[in-house]
Amino acid sequence: MAAAAPPPPPTPAPSAPTGLPDSDSTPVGHPLFSRIRLATPLDVPHIQKLIHQMAILEKLTHLFTATESDLASNLFKSPPFHSFTIFLLEVSSRPFEKDSNLHSQNFTPIERIINLDHSLIDPEAETFRNGINGDAVAAGFVLFFPNYSTFLGKPGFYVEDLFVRECYRRKGLGKMLLSAVVSQAVKMGYGRVEWVVLDWNVNAIKFYEEMGANVLPEWRICRITGPALEAYRDAI
Amino acid sequence: MAAAAPPPPPTPAPSAPTGLPDSDSTPVGHPLFSRIRLATPLDVPHIQKLIHQMAILEKLTHLFTATESDLASNLFKSPPFHSFTIFLLEVSSRPFEKDSNLHSQNFTPIERIINLDHSLIDPEAETFRNGINGDAVAAGFVLFFPNYSTFLGKPGFYVEDLFVRECYRRKGLGKMLLSAVVSQAVKMGYGRVEWVVLDWNVNAIKFYEEMGANVLPEWRICRITGPALEAYRDAI
Repeated sequence: MAAAAPPPPPTPAPSAPTGLPDSDSTPVGHPLFSRIRLATPLDVPHIQKLIHQMAILEKLTHLFTATESDLASNLFKSPPFHSFTIFLLEVSSRPFEKDSNLHSQNFTPIERIINLDHSLIDPEAETFRNGINGDAVAAGFVLFFPNYSTFLGKPGFYVEDLFVRECYRRKGLGKMLLSAVVSQAVKMGYGRVEWVVLDWNVNAIKFYEEMGANVLPEWRICRITGPALEAYRDAI
Repeated sequence: MAAAAPPPPPTPAPSAPTGLPDSDSTPVGHPLFSRIRLATPLDVPHIQKLIHQMAILEKLTHLFTATESDLASNLFKSPPFHSFTIFLLEVSSRPFEKDSNLHSQNFTPIERIINLDHSLIDPEAETFRNGINGDAVAAGFVLFFPNYSTFLGKPGFYVEDLFVRECYRRKGLGKMLLSAVVSQAVKMGYGRVEWVVLDWNVNAIKFYEEMGANVLPEWRICRITGPALEAYRDAI
């Protein structure tokens, strides 16, 4: 697809009686432990299913052709942040076990506890279960890669896809994923973060503007693909 | 900047009496020898000046801050086509000398001869002269980098900037630069090439559509930059 999926509507996360605690606080109510980490090749089956769900949401399954093999052969070829990079969002009803393997590669996983008013049932838990941390499931992802501003003379990030599975929406997790990318850009001294949104998706636009984004009214995307692209095979 | 500069209007290159000859033909009239090659760090002074001219053309000099040092420190860090890549367009009134150094890195320079009706005066020839091939000057460039389509499960190219100096416009050189990127995408098995255009720039849109591009009407660019970006420094 060409663009970040519409995010969950800008409903704020349900506030817990004591406010949103940080990771060291004792959770109250129904805690949802969430973690953002760099995806690895082992996550490809989950990522492929998440992308497929995004295609269904956008009614674009006719454009969806990516197999696990396609993704495995094109992703994870470069160190994180230098090329196509995926942050995977996992959630669990129990705290995540510490995993020092996840702390490498210039990125420390981000953990948050979200206190829900009600317990949450994930009808797809079996499909998206993490084989290592038994209770954790993949709940969403963001795929991004470096772009470049010649005017700034520095790189930025372009967010291609942002997706959270249906039962985990409206809890601030989409914002958490996008914020992780923007924070990483700041940390690396990059100049901007960009993505695209459909002009009729007013909820998404409001959500993004509240996060500090400007929506540029005049620019349009041009794309050469399919047979029109293939026609250039012998053009030069 | 955010986008490919408006290309030269879609005026076809002046046709020579015998049509556009290939590089082996004897030129007639006033031949302009043109060559597209991968830029190197030695080209940064010319590239910086070309970007500045683009900012003037777009009346965006207030957004232009890139120094030669910025560009040198951020470009040429990866092999060509794997990250930010620049094709430099050079022109000369004499044939280019063969340079085997330019044939490395998965790209063979593209040469064309354009037959002009009149001889051409380049008022900035001294500024943009190539120190090695004495008569050749830098006339334009295209900066592009890989992007990724999760639906296709494969990479593409995003064209950030396309620029041809004023005295060389309307001769098919912008089309030659963009075609070189599209051809490279096909050669690498990539799925698409994208860039952006201003919605009021009807000449540019017509030019791109004639090249096989679709202009996507509904997508809008979102951007976080400047203080709004900086606000995320301690967000995570």
